Amino acid sequence: MPPPPLPDFLRLLPWLAKWLALAAAVAALAGTASAFFLFALDWATATREAHRWLIALLPLAGAFVAWVYDRHGRAVEAGNNLLIDQIHDPHTQIPLRMAPLVLGGTVIAHLFGASVGREGTAVQMGGALADQLTSAFRLGRDDRRLLLMAGISAGFASVFGTPLAGAVFGLEVLTVGRLRFDALLPCTVAAILADRVTSAWGAHHTHYAVGAIPPETAATLLAVAVAGALFGLAGKLFAEATHALGAWMKRRLPTAPLRPLVGGAVIASLVLAFGADRWIGLGIPVIVESFARPLGAHDWLLKLLFTVGSLGSGFKGGEVTPLFFMGATLGNALAPLLQLPFGFLAGIGFVAVFAGAANVPLASTLMAMELFGSAMGMPALLACVLSWLCSGQSGIYKAQRGREGKRPG
Amino acid sequence: MPPPPLPDFLRLLPWLAKWLALAAAVAALAGTASAFFLFALDWATATREAHRWLIALLPLAGAFVAWVYDRHGRAVEAGNNLLIDQIHDPHTQIPLRMAPLVLGGTVIAHLFGASVGREGTAVQMGGALADQLTSAFRLGRDDRRLLLMAGISAGFASVFGTPLAGAVFGLEVLTVGRLRFDALLPCTVAAILADRVTSAWGAHHTHYAVGAIPPETAATLLAVAVAGALFGLAGKLFAEATHALGAWMKRRLPTAPLRPLVGGAVIASLVLAFGADRWIGLGIPVIVESFARPLGAHDWLLKLLFTVGSLGSGFKGGEVTPLFFMGATLGNALAPLLQLPFGFLAGIGFVAVFAGAANVPLASTLMAMELFGSAMGMPALLACVLSWLCSGQSGIYKAQRGREGKRPG
Repeated sequence: MPPPPLPDFLRLLPWLAKWLALAAAVAALAGTASAFFLFALDWATATREAHRWLIALLPLAGAFVAWVYDRHGRAVEAGNNLLIDQIHDPHTQIPLRMAPLVLGGTVIAHLFGASVGREGTAVQMGGALADQLTSAFRLGRDDRRLLLMAGISAGFASVFGTPLAGAVFGLEVLTVGRLRFDALLPCTVAAILADRVTSAWGAHHTHYAVGAIPPETAATLLAVAVAGALFGLAGKLFAEATHALGAWMKRRLPTAPLRPLVGGAVIASLVLAFGADRWIGLGIPVIVESFARPLGAHDWLLKLLFTVGSLGSGFKGGEVTPLFFMGATLGNALAPLLQLPFGFLAGIGFVAVFAGAANVPLASTLMAMELFGSAMGMPALLACVLSWLCSGQSGIYKAQRGREGKRPG
Repeated sequence: MPPPPLPDFLRLLPWLAKWLALAAAVAALAGTASAFFLFALDWATATREAHRWLIALLPLAGAFVAWVYDRHGRAVEAGNNLLIDQIHDPHTQIPLRMAPLVLGGTVIAHLFGASVGREGTAVQMGGALADQLTSAFRLGRDDRRLLLMAGISAGFASVFGTPLAGAVFGLEVLTVGRLRFDALLPCTVAAILADRVTSAWGAHHTHYAVGAIPPETAATLLAVAVAGALFGLAGKLFAEATHALGAWMKRRLPTAPLRPLVGGAVIASLVLAFGADRWIGLGIPVIVESFARPLGAHDWLLKLLFTVGSLGSGFKGGEVTPLFFMGATLGNALAPLLQLPFGFLAGIGFVAVFAGAANVPLASTLMAMELFGSAMGMPALLACVLSWLCSGQSGIYKAQRGREGKRPG
């Protein structure tokens, strides 16, 4: 007869208790930071919209942030890539200053009208705060890896209000095509609790309504697959263009503050000359619009250009909300061509461009189910897998490993 | 500036076309087999209920199936474990006879009243049918691995009507705590299409309504986590008891047909003497009941005993539907103790005992979202992760690797 199940379980209990406590601590820190960040973003966006002349200061603001990073932030400049590197190959603790620097840099970028996102900021705050527990509790190498992953999950989950996507993002973002589960409990608990903490602080997330979901016919599935491939190519284009512009700027302008000075001048001139406000900032109103009515075919491309310009010239912030914007507006534009409802394809694009550009097909599918309901799960998975495959060996996170793992051999 | 994105993508296209076609072929075969199997199960269950004396023949029916396997099915007797082994370490093609043998064996088990499930049957039919394409298309070792995984995904997705859970199950079931994505496209496409094929044949799946979902307070999350741990211990108990009884029967009764003869005699006597019909067969009506009203605390344990007895003495069929039954009824029973709504905890238990016993925390979370709606995703993930951790190094699939990978080190 079987051995009684308790001994094995009893050996697990201390580890379980330790990680429930550590994950809760990570969640409290990252969730609070995300709530504060979301409030600051609301303030920055509202202030910029009320005082449009702030956009003229974008070059100076960018140069200032770059100067501060150059003097005090060289150790944390690699941002998300530093976190990913430290998880793969841990050696130095993430300096706590990563959190205030990226928070300040991102809020300034939004206040003066750069086109950037927020996941990078939330993830870096989560990771940097989590890593402070390493020395506080004298944790070893394996524990530290789990703690950093939990910090990433907590940051992502709380800034978007998507605990499942956050939990899996922390596992999935490290290595393309391979997922290890030894951090599953820390990432899950940190993601769930961080989302609750952010909500408890009173932060809210935008609600998106995809509207009618078409019947699952062969024609629908084929159209979704084709759209998924196009979303992946858009994600690839974005990732490669951002890296290429960044490298080119670094070569031509070796003095860091000059890069956002020049890039910011170009962006601010375009916005003020052509009234291109639609494609800067987070762009949440346009994302909401893309679910509600047919838009032009140019929105996604202009958002891509403004974001590539902003990130490539060194403004701080994330890539993911701009990717949601590009995906939702590209989906909206493709819908009539593919004979799909535009709200539906906007929702699929929202997650699928992200899936391809960040190489996270499962986290993005879970995000679709969390944001749009479980009926979107099946088409989202199909589109996200196609997008992930078609984005090839590109990706927004340079430190991510294993890009050759999408196909065997 | 970036290289144009097309060349990379063009190199992908032939592989993509090949795998869309192969996955569609797997889906057509596995989806059709699942539809036929579901119709046969409905017939077997209805016939047994209409002619209750059939239960008296359970020992003879079991002995007959074991005799047929002994003479013609030794190469496929390992079932799911053979599939998992061939994916890890491919050498011999799965004989096509695996499909009719397991189909016949399972339908006979249900017709005469064993307590078994159906996922093993669907997965083995899917895998065996898929592997026939290996020789038909002269596929190499890597392609064969992907094909078998796609067959598993297709079988699982189509028999339960859950394409997302099926896609991830095929990736997740092979190795505990590690997931490789190089089969992600084949598994996804095969799972989605197989589910569509089964539906197109007119097969239906039971609809479960979990009712009210409690607010996400700290008390709720803690109660769900505790329940998850208990679900994992139940899954562990089931897996270890089944293996232990199987090993003991093999030692005491080396002649294969004697084992179901003895086991079937015990089960049939108990059912006929005590009217224990509630705990044999698939048990779908009791699962539905567990969402609708409070049940007794003994249902899950009796289902466990009857299923351990059936599988341990060699009856054919799967483990998963009995695990759903145990989980849903255990959740129903635990709900008042944990101050949670019984329909809610029945739904969590439905997936979480399975998550622990089969070591598939992500597939089971996706299943919760597909069957019960996306609001169940967060509590299901929490419970499934706890269950998966607490089931330790146990699991229903002996060939599954990497059981030490749940924690670092």
